[in-house]
Amino acid sequence: MIGPKTPVLAVLCGDQHPPDMKTIESVAEVRYSGEEGLADALRGADALFVYDFLSTAVPAAWHAADKLRWVHIASAGVDPVMFPELRASDVVLTNSRGVFDDSIAEYVLGVVIAFAKDLPGSLDLQRQSRWQHRESERVGGRRALVVGTGPIGRAIARLLRAAGLKVSGMGRRAREDDPDFGTVHPSADLVRHLPEFDYVIAVAPLTEQTKGMFDATAFAAMKPVARFVNVGRGELVVTSDLVTALREGRIAGAALDVFETEPLPSDHPLWTLDGVLVSPHMSGDFVGWRNTLVEVFADNFERWHTGRPLRNVVDKQLGYVPSGH
Amino acid sequence: MIGPKTPVLAVLCGDQHPPDMKTIESVAEVRYSGEEGLADALRGADALFVYDFLSTAVPAAWHAADKLRWVHIASAGVDPVMFPELRASDVVLTNSRGVFDDSIAEYVLGVVIAFAKDLPGSLDLQRQSRWQHRESERVGGRRALVVGTGPIGRAIARLLRAAGLKVSGMGRRAREDDPDFGTVHPSADLVRHLPEFDYVIAVAPLTEQTKGMFDATAFAAMKPVARFVNVGRGELVVTSDLVTALREGRIAGAALDVFETEPLPSDHPLWTLDGVLVSPHMSGDFVGWRNTLVEVFADNFERWHTGRPLRNVVDKQLGYVPSGH
Repeated sequence: MIGPKTPVLAVLCGDQHPPDMKTIESVAEVRYSGEEGLADALRGADALFVYDFLSTAVPAAWHAADKLRWVHIASAGVDPVMFPELRASDVVLTNSRGVFDDSIAEYVLGVVIAFAKDLPGSLDLQRQSRWQHRESERVGGRRALVVGTGPIGRAIARLLRAAGLKVSGMGRRAREDDPDFGTVHPSADLVRHLPEFDYVIAVAPLTEQTKGMFDATAFAAMKPVARFVNVGRGELVVTSDLVTALREGRIAGAALDVFETEPLPSDHPLWTLDGVLVSPHMSGDFVGWRNTLVEVFADNFERWHTGRPLRNVVDKQLGYVPSGH
Repeated sequence: MIGPKTPVLAVLCGDQHPPDMKTIESVAEVRYSGEEGLADALRGADALFVYDFLSTAVPAAWHAADKLRWVHIASAGVDPVMFPELRASDVVLTNSRGVFDDSIAEYVLGVVIAFAKDLPGSLDLQRQSRWQHRESERVGGRRALVVGTGPIGRAIARLLRAAGLKVSGMGRRAREDDPDFGTVHPSADLVRHLPEFDYVIAVAPLTEQTKGMFDATAFAAMKPVARFVNVGRGELVVTSDLVTALREGRIAGAALDVFETEPLPSDHPLWTLDGVLVSPHMSGDFVGWRNTLVEVFADNFERWHTGRPLRNVVDKQLGYVPSGH
């Protein structure tokens, strides 16, 4: 029933509207908007669903948010909405924690095995119809460092351990008895610990503390046989330093699903460097992910609409959902 | 000490001799031979080490084996030496069971994830510097049938289960409580069970019973979205039926490490068919595999030389080492 007290929900989306919104449309006024019309949509809106989670249009439209109480983003990373006005406001921010965990973990294990077994080399030779036997690396027993101890990092750690790798974590707080990681090293010791690992996986949230943490110093500290995997955010890396490290053979390879600039420009050196696997920010996007994202939002919407506590509330000072919440 | 009672060991190898043979050379007369000189090497030899495990030269030289008591082959599959004269003889046959298990299992999990996440598609797009987002499949929850319940099949089953797949086995004897497979279906029911699986992995020993078991009827029974993985022997498959099934989209793809003819001829359609991953019989060959093969042989040689029971004795009627031996 839509009536005078009907809540107003703005939805930031591209041409593709979110699926499965019928239930929400039956209890709220839903305003679908692209980046252009966002200010108009926000005027008088009670809530904002950032379905186009890569958009950076929210800050410019924020001035129109005169009644907004809640923002939900259809991603795990909340960096696109971490602008000072939202952080300073009373608006509650929630994210889509949990949706992508297992699927990103599968992608990470896949690229680890692809490196070890040289699947790209086999595909290259196959294109030339060339039979050329090579020896390959074992996966079991190799050491992996997962930088980022949120739910995606935990899923990665569990899956890599299940496949026989020796895994450690890196997070804000050092500990020895983590159920998923065993040892968690403190982020401040990154460079000291990097030489121990065959695979280094970046999945930390993007914050002022983590921005550019993988720089020339970090790549120089890695083993020359190490591979770097980024399923977090492109800005965790100083991209030019990564390109140099790969060119000079300071590390053996990289699997990159995220980039400082997306789409990755077609003339960027990362497309063609030896040992690099580029994928277009898709590691978590399993068939059905859009429906699952809307399910997560719809669950929170139902809670919000009935006055119950929201799930996945972001600590706007930390820039992510603290564990245990 | 080499003396009159010194045993004579013939070693069938190519240009590349096995490594680490010094200890054996100190107690035996070792005759390294290619395929050409094998009959001469066998004359008066007590034992034969088939280091060149893909060679089919043993049957033609067998007439010269006048003193032979033991043959050891540097592979898990013993089909190259399963000719009638050896089977009918008192010569003991041993294999290299165990060496390749974990490494082949890693390869299988790698191609399963590569299919699910479309890594070949990402590499294709990368070569064109094209950013094209796609949705990918989950691995967790998918169903895999491992056809072959020897140690390699068991390692595959354990690793796929660890990665979240639902695994069943197929072997001679049906059972419900297998520690690695849970349910093992009997081979006679292959076609009846094939429709249940997303991944079908062939790792059975090549025998008269298993030869050509994956034929047009089998491929027609699989799901159109299913992928076939062969890490056993090429002859388990009717290759022309597999080509037809792939061409007509009766199955979605195949990862093939073994072929009826090896090397796979450069004009063979399997090199270029959509959805096919070709690798050159290397799935088990981790860095160090040759040394490990010689260690396994050296352990058995030491047992043989000191009159202790040999490991990995092949049941020459079955064509493999029965489990529990």
